[in-house]
Amino acid sequence: MTIEAIVLEIAAAARKAGRLMSQIPTAQKNQALMTLADQLETDSERIFTANAKDVEQAGENGLSNAMIDRLKVTDATIRAMADGLREVAALGDPVGAMDESCLRPNGLEVSRMRVPLGVIGIIYESRPNVTVDAAGLCLKAGNAVILRGGSEAIHSNRALADLITASLTASGLPGKAVQVIPVTDRAAVTTLLAQESFIDLIIPRGGEGLIRFVVANSKIPVLKHYKGVCHVYVDQDADLGMAEDICFNAKVQRPGVCNAMETLLVDQSVADRFLPKVGRRLKDAGVTIRGCGRTRQRLAWAEAADDSDWPAEYLDLVLAVRVVDDLDQAMAHIADHGSNHTEVIVTRNYSRARRFIREVDASAVIVNASTRFNDGGQLGLGAEIGISTSKLHAYGPMGLKELTTTKFVVFGDGQVRTT
Amino acid sequence: MTIEAIVLEIAAAARKAGRLMSQIPTAQKNQALMTLADQLETDSERIFTANAKDVEQAGENGLSNAMIDRLKVTDATIRAMADGLREVAALGDPVGAMDESCLRPNGLEVSRMRVPLGVIGIIYESRPNVTVDAAGLCLKAGNAVILRGGSEAIHSNRALADLITASLTASGLPGKAVQVIPVTDRAAVTTLLAQESFIDLIIPRGGEGLIRFVVANSKIPVLKHYKGVCHVYVDQDADLGMAEDICFNAKVQRPGVCNAMETLLVDQSVADRFLPKVGRRLKDAGVTIRGCGRTRQRLAWAEAADDSDWPAEYLDLVLAVRVVDDLDQAMAHIADHGSNHTEVIVTRNYSRARRFIREVDASAVIVNASTRFNDGGQLGLGAEIGISTSKLHAYGPMGLKELTTTKFVVFGDGQVRTT
Repeated sequence: MTIEAIVLEIAAAARKAGRLMSQIPTAQKNQALMTLADQLETDSERIFTANAKDVEQAGENGLSNAMIDRLKVTDATIRAMADGLREVAALGDPVGAMDESCLRPNGLEVSRMRVPLGVIGIIYESRPNVTVDAAGLCLKAGNAVILRGGSEAIHSNRALADLITASLTASGLPGKAVQVIPVTDRAAVTTLLAQESFIDLIIPRGGEGLIRFVVANSKIPVLKHYKGVCHVYVDQDADLGMAEDICFNAKVQRPGVCNAMETLLVDQSVADRFLPKVGRRLKDAGVTIRGCGRTRQRLAWAEAADDSDWPAEYLDLVLAVRVVDDLDQAMAHIADHGSNHTEVIVTRNYSRARRFIREVDASAVIVNASTRFNDGGQLGLGAEIGISTSKLHAYGPMGLKELTTTKFVVFGDGQVRTT
Repeated sequence: MTIEAIVLEIAAAARKAGRLMSQIPTAQKNQALMTLADQLETDSERIFTANAKDVEQAGENGLSNAMIDRLKVTDATIRAMADGLREVAALGDPVGAMDESCLRPNGLEVSRMRVPLGVIGIIYESRPNVTVDAAGLCLKAGNAVILRGGSEAIHSNRALADLITASLTASGLPGKAVQVIPVTDRAAVTTLLAQESFIDLIIPRGGEGLIRFVVANSKIPVLKHYKGVCHVYVDQDADLGMAEDICFNAKVQRPGVCNAMETLLVDQSVADRFLPKVGRRLKDAGVTIRGCGRTRQRLAWAEAADDSDWPAEYLDLVLAVRVVDDLDQAMAHIADHGSNHTEVIVTRNYSRARRFIREVDASAVIVNASTRFNDGGQLGLGAEIGISTSKLHAYGPMGLKELTTTKFVVFGDGQVRTT
């Protein structure tokens, strides 16, 4: 069979499975998730054996230690996957709810009913836990899912897929509701991205290169973010102690993630008091600062920032710092260099807080808290399948509800149109 | 200037205008819409003059009478455009509302705020009224818009654009909030579809060929429907008089639109009683019927349907008719041949009505009313910019709300993340 034929067969089977999935009662979907959680823990040896092959090959192929680390499945990984599935089982099911009802003058009753999207394709790199986490969320929302993980994790993903299929069929769900593409050729991805009659949504998760490739080649709608260039603006009326804690947390607590701060903007009227203190604390934590001229007047040890720093997503203990004239210059900087991901103002001023909230265009706009809160779990969505900085369908973290859509439902008693 | 440079300049100017538009108060947006409505009526001669050039060229280029008819701007067209703008001005402004608020255990207040999408590109054919209708809806929702009409309407569209720009600036709105691409080369479209940093959404309106071209070439999210293959299923428990009226309305009232019925499915147990009556009435109205074998047993005069009829969108006084065994066969037919647009069941049976509503996957699922009600105005959206059969962002008619998105807004008092 050609790669194209393999992918086509998977996509067509997913559409059929999706139709069945859309009608599965909540209790039965939860049962499948709980069964899978148990199976992962009791059958962990099978996963470890398959994963060891991937790790061995990764070593032979000269992958970096960091990448091998992300690839490795440990007892803790298994536990996290199982616990995650149990949490998703405990979440409310968005499917079937009716909303925005109205009675039209001609007597028609119109509502919107929440329904599954249908078939979701996930294209990702490295971490095998995505296979289980993504499958769990998609299933709970009544969708079928096609998973295309990185070639370096193929043995792990196949083993996980076998477990998932067994748990689905044991709970009376269609076995094809979760399918892993078993070939590692990139042609499988381009074929997948052309199946708009079988697939309703593509979610790419990984580096910017992968995501740009997916967007450029997909005929199917894509939800994604390219990068997170998140700012904290310390206003002239900020509580500087609070600002220091927020900046430290936003940069240092987990620098490698998309909602970490990449650029700090400081109002010129507080730069003298704020920068030396926060600068020392960041430096002590190992942070390299790349500052504008006015920053380096206060932090002589800082490196000089150039134009490449303002749009940079370092994902590391590096921070760009700029002293700005006022709120307007801060918001202009964010509009010019931000990535519509997460933007924070620290202030005690009511009007400027409101202006920042209304005028800044980002998936999450935050007053007086860390950038790190732009996360599905933290914002109350329960669990997330990713963060979107596209504005269509979802802007920000995507949870169960974002894996569904609404259809119009109309009840009449013989109405016809005359105009 | 090259075509690419022209389009890039327009797109960059639209992004800037969009940022300004997002902050314009409702009253000021309404003022601009009302001014434009008045201007259209007082300056209609300028539009007629420009339109006459397009109509003359269309004649020279040998366009069909139907196409020239769609191109022509009359007094009635002007009045409809002006009235449409006044209706949009009267609609509520979706921008700025907060929703789905929650208080997190750590004290963060989380909400979603409705905000404009930003910049919307509309790619359409023929009818110059789309220029005004689309601009009005996009503006009211706080967006900037780039319009790319058909080359055959270029003079009309340029004249309308001049009027729109004058009305915008007279009301203090950014003049570049509505821009018409002044070149007719198709390269302008492909360049436009690549500007994902400047444009947030593309809406193509026109024939299936245009739409497929846009989807294949766009890096920007697209909302669209390819076609409307809408079914009416007449159940064994249907009120046959009601079913006849609904079928007649769905097929005959306006056969050239996407929410007209294209295939009639009749339960075998009522075929003998239903088909001869409805068949005669449709035939008298000039409808050609293309039927399955069991249909032709009842309607000897019907043409024989073949496999190409079931997925056909005739947009004409032609109807495919199939006699089915039961509800399951009807729903399987719809799943196999439908276009997720509009599906109707006529029945007095409670359980089968509920099954049809839950199990059929279409942007509008209707019990006991005409397919023709799948329309933004009819379903209570006020006005519509099109119908989406993609499931992302919007499924069904798209009104003002569908031209916006939501961002997360978070109020804290110093919260940082520890895990």
